Amino acid sequence: VRTLKLTLEYDGTGYVGWQRQPDGVSIQGLLEDALAPIEGGRVVVHGAGRTDAGVHALGQVASVALTAALEPAALQRALNAVLPLDVRVLAVEEAARSFHARFSAQWKAYEYRIVNAPFVSAFEYRRAWHVPRPLDHAAIEEAARALKGRHDFASFQATGTPVPSTERTIEAIEWRRGAGPSGPSVLHVRGDGFLRHMVRAIAGTLVDIGLGRWPPSQMPAILAARNRAAAGRSAPPQGLFLVAVGYPDEP
Amino acid sequence: VRTLKLTLEYDGTGYVGWQRQPDGVSIQGLLEDALAPIEGGRVVVHGAGRTDAGVHALGQVASVALTAALEPAALQRALNAVLPLDVRVLAVEEAARSFHARFSAQWKAYEYRIVNAPFVSAFEYRRAWHVPRPLDHAAIEEAARALKGRHDFASFQATGTPVPSTERTIEAIEWRRGAGPSGPSVLHVRGDGFLRHMVRAIAGTLVDIGLGRWPPSQMPAILAARNRAAAGRSAPPQGLFLVAVGYPDEP
Repeated sequence: VRTLKLTLEYDGTGYVGWQRQPDGVSIQGLLEDALAPIEGGRVVVHGAGRTDAGVHALGQVASVALTAALEPAALQRALNAVLPLDVRVLAVEEAARSFHARFSAQWKAYEYRIVNAPFVSAFEYRRAWHVPRPLDHAAIEEAARALKGRHDFASFQATGTPVPSTERTIEAIEWRRGAGPSGPSVLHVRGDGFLRHMVRAIAGTLVDIGLGRWPPSQMPAILAARNRAAAGRSAPPQGLFLVAVGYPDEP
Repeated sequence: VRTLKLTLEYDGTGYVGWQRQPDGVSIQGLLEDALAPIEGGRVVVHGAGRTDAGVHALGQVASVALTAALEPAALQRALNAVLPLDVRVLAVEEAARSFHARFSAQWKAYEYRIVNAPFVSAFEYRRAWHVPRPLDHAAIEEAARALKGRHDFASFQATGTPVPSTERTIEAIEWRRGAGPSGPSVLHVRGDGFLRHMVRAIAGTLVDIGLGRWPPSQMPAILAARNRAAAGRSAPPQGLFLVAVGYPDEP
């Protein structure tokens, strides 16, 4: 048995998310179903991030243990030949036996895209959140800065999902204003781990601040409340992209 | 009665094309159906380019005669509120009574996008032609140059579509190589008019030349043949974008 690392890109629009579900088509299910005939038996694929329905990936990472002797490049071609065109395998690499896409991950990077214009482009509406009212970008930038570092992010966690700790470290967070009248503004965030719906709750809260619901100085109090009700709305899934996952011994 | 000029963007993936058809949803049909309740009666919308099924537009232009007194900005908002999100009205302007989107047009500009890489991105496959074998970009550039100027383009016209003249002028034609390993290469072409399927036949023939089917020096002979069979294949619709339409008294 060897372990392979898969790097994946997908348009999440038509899927129930990463994780296999009783109903609907999942990315995990597509990969496991594509690998089964190659392996000659059932395989389990682990993903670094369990993206929700409608969430996209530019660099999701998955791991799988296989006995099949196929070269990585041949496996990549075989998978891309059978997967739907909105799910692509960007790379297949041999990994250490102990490699696990989720448990070995050191950091993850996400983008959240927002179109702040009266209308959203015909080519963007499935890949961005359309916020028609003008945003106060300076307020968003100030509020985002307060999230950097190690914090208890319980205020930004989906309710009903108990985890041992709600502390996480945001290593980098940046709001890049859209270019031109209708170019998307993008929230870039990288951290050592994310709670369920955390990026969407952060993006939604930043937009609420950008629309004047709270001043940016409210952000420390929102964090300190450790209560989902203290933060803003959850941004919709179609603006969220899992961009990259980092592992030890990688630049 | 006044004449209005509409500038439109659309993702053509789900449509039967610009022109209203007995079956399927057309862009013209969507606009006419959206305008009818505003006008209080049937309206006819004329498009500058009759884009085929699956072809996209970044700057299609349409004209319509209306008696309704709505301000252009209010009309734009009303249309965008009822049209599907993959069809957007980018601008509405008052035009001269005699303005006609097709007959008044002086030039049209198209882009044809090609991904020349082993795999095409999950986010690109509906907006580009995937050509996996490596293209000879220098050969394509040389062949494209031979098309510039006034020529009889009968070799690049869909068969069975008689027109009074098959002479057209290509004012500008440029092949821009894709950036990075998988960025799309783009054919930019602007001319005073285009025969049916002309841009797709040009793109397909350039790709055939880029794959070595003919040397680039074959292009003048292909033009001189005035026979569709002398040129290469027709490129698929999803790579084609109607970018802009030019009118007198516009820069």
